[in-house]
Amino acid sequence: MAKRLGIVGGGQLGRMLALAAAPLGVECRFIDPSPDAGARVAADQLVAAYDDRDALAELAAWSDVITFEFENVPAEALAAVAGQAHFAPSPRSLEVSQDRLLEKQLFAELGLGVAPYVAIDSAAELAAAIDRFAGPAILKTRRLGYDGKGQVRIESSGQATRAWDAISAAPAIVEQMVEFRRELSVVVARDAGGRCVVYPPSENVHRDGILFSSSAPAVLDERELAAATSSAIAIAERLDHVGVLTVELFDLGDALAINELAPRVHNSGHWTQNGCLTSQFENHVRAVVGLPLGDPRPVRQSVMINFVGGMPDPSELLAIPGTALHLYDKSARPGRKLAHANVVELERDDSTFKERVQQVAELADAAWISGSAGATQ
Amino acid sequence: MAKRLGIVGGGQLGRMLALAAAPLGVECRFIDPSPDAGARVAADQLVAAYDDRDALAELAAWSDVITFEFENVPAEALAAVAGQAHFAPSPRSLEVSQDRLLEKQLFAELGLGVAPYVAIDSAAELAAAIDRFAGPAILKTRRLGYDGKGQVRIESSGQATRAWDAISAAPAIVEQMVEFRRELSVVVARDAGGRCVVYPPSENVHRDGILFSSSAPAVLDERELAAATSSAIAIAERLDHVGVLTVELFDLGDALAINELAPRVHNSGHWTQNGCLTSQFENHVRAVVGLPLGDPRPVRQSVMINFVGGMPDPSELLAIPGTALHLYDKSARPGRKLAHANVVELERDDSTFKERVQQVAELADAAWISGSAGATQ
Repeated sequence: MAKRLGIVGGGQLGRMLALAAAPLGVECRFIDPSPDAGARVAADQLVAAYDDRDALAELAAWSDVITFEFENVPAEALAAVAGQAHFAPSPRSLEVSQDRLLEKQLFAELGLGVAPYVAIDSAAELAAAIDRFAGPAILKTRRLGYDGKGQVRIESSGQATRAWDAISAAPAIVEQMVEFRRELSVVVARDAGGRCVVYPPSENVHRDGILFSSSAPAVLDERELAAATSSAIAIAERLDHVGVLTVELFDLGDALAINELAPRVHNSGHWTQNGCLTSQFENHVRAVVGLPLGDPRPVRQSVMINFVGGMPDPSELLAIPGTALHLYDKSARPGRKLAHANVVELERDDSTFKERVQQVAELADAAWISGSAGATQ
Repeated sequence: MAKRLGIVGGGQLGRMLALAAAPLGVECRFIDPSPDAGARVAADQLVAAYDDRDALAELAAWSDVITFEFENVPAEALAAVAGQAHFAPSPRSLEVSQDRLLEKQLFAELGLGVAPYVAIDSAAELAAAIDRFAGPAILKTRRLGYDGKGQVRIESSGQATRAWDAISAAPAIVEQMVEFRRELSVVVARDAGGRCVVYPPSENVHRDGILFSSSAPAVLDERELAAATSSAIAIAERLDHVGVLTVELFDLGDALAINELAPRVHNSGHWTQNGCLTSQFENHVRAVVGLPLGDPRPVRQSVMINFVGGMPDPSELLAIPGTALHLYDKSARPGRKLAHANVVELERDDSTFKERVQQVAELADAAWISGSAGATQ
């Protein structure tokens, strides 16, 4: 097994990966441009930009394997150190997930349901697509969008030019807006030998374009569960992905449509820290260092709730039974994810569970400050 | 709440305290004479002896509160920085647990059952006590004994002089050996407001005087459970203890007898990391920094198994379903605790549980190397 794990990115995901790696005897070192990155608590830092080739080369020289906290690492930077480093997941997983068009094409190749979409390279193409959809649509830049950034809602083809300008005429896709009952996500971990473990899907609620809560296991019928699970596995296999991969889906009522993928641990999988026998962070570490994957089964029900822009008093929060807090050690800023809480059902059919979740949600709600200009990570 | 936690001692217990503190936003710094102490993974280190007054003063100046990984910190060293530091637990808890005679007296004052014992200050007193017991006994130094060190078994008063010499004529107690069915321990966490949460007792198995395994919740009838729980709470209250405290008991078949206490997180409570909604480490941190205590309820059944002197291949170990590994980042040495595994029942009445525990126990057994001269921490 690999003993030294390099991580590109040292925010909360890198931090929780490093904290999960320590008990396994896996040492971590990470690259992050911010000198007070949260992962420092359990890993050494190289203060450098994510695409700093010298820093990547230094990390590669130290690491047995390099993994990623986020997918938007320039492919050229990785290519430059490809000979010196072993990456898990491979740059192919990043490449696809960096580009909404490649993502959609992958889903289509695998026969997975997606909302109708068109690749867009001009305002005219956009206007034509909107006319064909005959209904509201969302224009999304192909690259570098997250938490609602780089997205514009369009009602009619008359708005095409303004929308195209709003995304600075960047290569994009436009998607027909679908009516969905709810958003789900599925976290799968895959090891180098191709074995997969899949967590039960969570049901996600957003606010201001930022994840507010994830509840798991989501209530799904057998057919839906099989579809969600097999879609996640199919994507991981097609990418020959090693590590955790997260798939977001829309529940359309009569079918599921894949929305997007993240080739990494994901906010909607944070509930696994307290709600499963093995967390998504531990399973990502196990997968990329070459250890057997751990059991993904849930203990009971869990709800993860994000704290964005502001924090409640931890004493008030932790006085709510069955509540765990995970702070990211970041200064407060509107729209910034500062921490999350996991609320776990205390016993089977625990009648207090909903009430406790509600209490945590109210604390999160009162402290919530979203950014005026959209969310930041 | 306190944000900066000083820890005296940076071995595996300090390490797991620091890893539990990080998600709560509590920063840790510790004193340990070993330059490669395991707690470094998640805390800053002052390389110094535990009784180094300058280092303690430096730690006190930085810390909001100072806690302890182990109880044998010289009282004088703590007294010297008492004005500058807030200790949790207080030095009183350490003082009592440093001295087997004070411990026994405390148990007696509280009306708790203990094995018959006599304070010993000479070979003649020892011989007289053995004659009164009319059966085998154990001579134990009052101070600085752990994992079977500083203990001598005596069969008859004729062995008194040799036994007394074997412990270098140190102040001691002699205890009548009691026939016990099993050893149990109870972990209680108490906060500064006097609130207590108690974990379900574990059943402990030793090998070569070192803990081999702890299984929890132990099967106890209602009366036994109430006795074990109330004993632990009574001791914590009498000491005005803040933090986790562990009580070891003997199950005599018809009654429980208290064996000893540890004013800290304890090896027999490691199962709580994967087996409970809140681990003993998190609850110790919560208690000493002034956060509300977390729910101690068990998920299902768990067994903790120690790896001493040698390690199995982590890949082989982690391939056993429902198994978590906690490595201490220590070099192997006979008798040294290197790691533990927690095996968790996967579902109610999981028929594979016993078999999986057996597999882990066999791996631990094959790797086990105890020290010829007794155990070391």
